[in-house]
Amino acid sequence: MEIIRPENKQPMPAHAKLVFKGVLHDVYQWEQQGFDGSTMVFEKLARPDTVNVIAVTEDKRILIAHQEQPGKPPFRSLPGGRVDEGEDILAAAKRELLEESGYESSEWELLSAYQPLSKIDWAIFSFVARGAKKVADQTLDAGEKIEIEPVDFDMFLGIVLQPDFLEQELRIQILEAKLDPAKMQELRHKILGY
Amino acid sequence: MEIIRPENKQPMPAHAKLVFKGVLHDVYQWEQQGFDGSTMVFEKLARPDTVNVIAVTEDKRILIAHQEQPGKPPFRSLPGGRVDEGEDILAAAKRELLEESGYESSEWELLSAYQPLSKIDWAIFSFVARGAKKVADQTLDAGEKIEIEPVDFDMFLGIVLQPDFLEQELRIQILEAKLDPAKMQELRHKILGY
Repeated sequence: MEIIRPENKQPMPAHAKLVFKGVLHDVYQWEQQGFDGSTMVFEKLARPDTVNVIAVTEDKRILIAHQEQPGKPPFRSLPGGRVDEGEDILAAAKRELLEESGYESSEWELLSAYQPLSKIDWAIFSFVARGAKKVADQTLDAGEKIEIEPVDFDMFLGIVLQPDFLEQELRIQILEAKLDPAKMQELRHKILGY
Repeated sequence: MEIIRPENKQPMPAHAKLVFKGVLHDVYQWEQQGFDGSTMVFEKLARPDTVNVIAVTEDKRILIAHQEQPGKPPFRSLPGGRVDEGEDILAAAKRELLEESGYESSEWELLSAYQPLSKIDWAIFSFVARGAKKVADQTLDAGEKIEIEPVDFDMFLGIVLQPDFLEQELRIQILEAKLDPAKMQELRHKILGY
């Protein structure tokens, strides 16, 4: 599988300078020429990319993560997390699925890849992983509590549309599919494989 | 009009320390206790809030901004921008509408206020401004080129659903309204006033 990292809408110029390195975010600045020839300081962040996984079990159920993190209200999401420095994107998705759910899958496909914001160089990769099987216990960080619930396709569509569900881009895809039977069939095929 | 700033999903604790002050983003860090009692460094950003305006002219057309900014492909959006330090939210919305379009409105309402991300303390306020009239020329920054196009309500709905339109939350509201006639009637009433 060839995975191409999407470019940010406002790519950082080569002369941008790293002005702060945080534990999660790096801050870059550069002199930008305006439309009238004057110069301004532009600022932009970079952070680790994110992977998330629509994991489909052999009986065609999809894994939903019920999550708690310190200082946040509970929320629901797909299994997923941050790509480590230098880590392969697909390897990160497989690692996060295994850590958060204890599941492994035989059949992986990239569903979408996009950058949500122009001020942060940050790509989000969504995978479909069919044939998911429980092979291990969860191995969670001290900063997470996760319970995995397998649900059928229609329940999955309903959960993604709830306000406590994390992935906004998937919500848009599902709303668009609900308005267009051809798109819904395509989405169902991409996820369930039939 | 009382405007309440929405809280971030993961509010910054009082002991968070400002570790970097950029031209747009401030970086904060704090020691966070994990679920197993261990401590980790958590990091979070703060940036200026954003206002945007659905400005409705007396002949019931809505102002769309066709924008160019250095280093970005052209995009469409609502008129709007950043709230200055210490500036009143509604005053910022009025200022941005006037600067970007040259329009003033007599009738202002808050349509929505939310924080899109848990890692950035950043609120986005959307207003409806009815009775919009052209009273001045645009006064743009060196970092923007904007052309204003008034469009009717149905065209407005279509433009918000296009991928080059900036405000994602509005796209979700419109998709939900297209799936539910009662929600569409409510949205139309909130925007057009009838």
